[in-house]
Amino acid sequence: MILEELNNISNLITEIIRSDDFPEKIEPLQLREAVLSYPLRAGKRLRPALVVWSCGLLDGDIKQAEYAAAAVEVYHNWTLVHDDIIDQDDVRRGKPATHTELKNFAKKNYSSQNAEKFGTDFGILAGDLQHAWAMNLLLKSIHKGVPSGIVANLARDLCEKLSRELISGEALDVEFSYKDIKDVSPEEVEKMMYLKTGALLNFSVTTGAKIALNTDNSKDKRIQKLVEFATAVGIAFQLRDDWLGIFGDAEAFGKPLGTDICSAKPTLLLQTSLKYLKGDDKAKLLNFLGASRISKKELEIIRSLMRKSGAEKEILDKTHYLQHQAEKSLSVFPDNEYRKLLLDLNNYLLTRNK
Amino acid sequence: MILEELNNISNLITEIIRSDDFPEKIEPLQLREAVLSYPLRAGKRLRPALVVWSCGLLDGDIKQAEYAAAAVEVYHNWTLVHDDIIDQDDVRRGKPATHTELKNFAKKNYSSQNAEKFGTDFGILAGDLQHAWAMNLLLKSIHKGVPSGIVANLARDLCEKLSRELISGEALDVEFSYKDIKDVSPEEVEKMMYLKTGALLNFSVTTGAKIALNTDNSKDKRIQKLVEFATAVGIAFQLRDDWLGIFGDAEAFGKPLGTDICSAKPTLLLQTSLKYLKGDDKAKLLNFLGASRISKKELEIIRSLMRKSGAEKEILDKTHYLQHQAEKSLSVFPDNEYRKLLLDLNNYLLTRNK
Repeated sequence: MILEELNNISNLITEIIRSDDFPEKIEPLQLREAVLSYPLRAGKRLRPALVVWSCGLLDGDIKQAEYAAAAVEVYHNWTLVHDDIIDQDDVRRGKPATHTELKNFAKKNYSSQNAEKFGTDFGILAGDLQHAWAMNLLLKSIHKGVPSGIVANLARDLCEKLSRELISGEALDVEFSYKDIKDVSPEEVEKMMYLKTGALLNFSVTTGAKIALNTDNSKDKRIQKLVEFATAVGIAFQLRDDWLGIFGDAEAFGKPLGTDICSAKPTLLLQTSLKYLKGDDKAKLLNFLGASRISKKELEIIRSLMRKSGAEKEILDKTHYLQHQAEKSLSVFPDNEYRKLLLDLNNYLLTRNK
Repeated sequence: MILEELNNISNLITEIIRSDDFPEKIEPLQLREAVLSYPLRAGKRLRPALVVWSCGLLDGDIKQAEYAAAAVEVYHNWTLVHDDIIDQDDVRRGKPATHTELKNFAKKNYSSQNAEKFGTDFGILAGDLQHAWAMNLLLKSIHKGVPSGIVANLARDLCEKLSRELISGEALDVEFSYKDIKDVSPEEVEKMMYLKTGALLNFSVTTGAKIALNTDNSKDKRIQKLVEFATAVGIAFQLRDDWLGIFGDAEAFGKPLGTDICSAKPTLLLQTSLKYLKGDDKAKLLNFLGASRISKKELEIIRSLMRKSGAEKEILDKTHYLQHQAEKSLSVFPDNEYRKLLLDLNNYLLTRNK
């Protein structure tokens, strides 16, 4: 049911992205294709769903929120394109990352070193264009009947809150990757998670709500409640992801388990485990970090260390607590179909196995 | 006189940039400093001058155009930050490029390979933040009394025209750098120059004019005339720059001459020379491309080849023609102090030796 509803949102967004005229005049062709690549690879489309359903929750005309919904999706994509360059990730949603696609294209004509550089250069520019495109889609909300004063206010939110927070979060993440993992505290990880993931979810619900309420007042109590919801969902979503990466079912998850250990990624699960473990146990866990691969047997050792430390339970408890908090935040709203969708979404995100 | 006026604009822009609250909440500190670095290195501040003076030309309240003027300067800076990463340029306005500053900072704590990567990663993010900051400054024009409908329209111009054209221009430039220089035509170079430089000058005059006229109509005849002016000035400016890089006075120019030859940059001067030269002469010029340095004697050979081909004269003629066209575009406007400033600016840019 919720998957079907997400699928409807996904089709709507794909249609807007495919028919929008922004990419048409981008040159050269290879750059244009790079700009369209991630936006047309449908992911969960979670963010556009938050825009549309928040608008519906507050009795808004959800048609008015459609461009804004496409905007948050394209916005999400530019951050992924630059992230993938920075993290040197070569795969995104089961296909080559944008810079890798560009590199593969360039290999036909250039030396492999030049192709690598070309991929990164065009990848940076493709993300820059998506950044502008996202803003452009948001501004087109005027054509859907959203007053220009509200649209200008949403555009300011996008720059002042979303971009500043999200990019700061990405920078903290980069910084952590250069630090010794023992020097990053769980509190720092949680803050980074909020900035990197939560800021865009908050922007999504705020945007839907402002369009519905025809207000630019971010302090409106209903908007505050929706922000509480999105913040809780965002962190819980991330915690679930980190947990699945270690304790999940490899087949259902669709990705190898333990990769966060291989890349020594400071997740809250790992940082909490390291905080509680002492002596030999701590040394054992630290010893796995940066391994080129994790065997099934090693994964079992990691799991038992994380269990023994109490970190797994703490993370699961925290996830449930946040899920409950998210639910509670929505209790102040009238019981309509969109509230039901948001509650189902919360439930789905935190029980999913992939 | 014109330098003094540009200096006044520069001080105004520096003041706005320094007191704006956008950078305050950027984390970590090193990223915040990187975001402020280029904007506080005052260059010519040519673009903000075009915004303010175009507004004044049309009897607008130039105070209303101040945030927009700061916006085009910050916008220019994010493109430089990403360009410098792409072109691997380590110097900007006599100081280290942003990614180099960041690398130097990181060297204190990281290995040199990690410091290099850190510099690029944070450099990408610093440019992304400046991109958002520029848009944010433009949107703040509402506080200066510009109606929200006009501001939303200017923001759309920034995304739809400026960003799309300018980033396409940068991509074409990147593409040329991988091509054999013989496969790039003078027409392609001219188009790239228009996109990469002209688009921002056009946006600058259009923005000043729209604020003055309180219109969102880009087809207004006065705006069209100002766009003609900016397009001519932009290409002439670039031609002057390319000419100075070969035929200038090294001391006045402040940079070594012939570097465009070393980097085999397809300038219109070079492409036109190659178009006209035949046989041995052409081979001789091609032979210098990519040299690690150009001696005084070699520079004289290059100069004489470019002269002999007729390319130098063609470029100088073209520059004068464009300068004259720019002047003519302004003849339809009433003779006020801002028209004088724009004419002086045109004259200054095309007679400068640095």
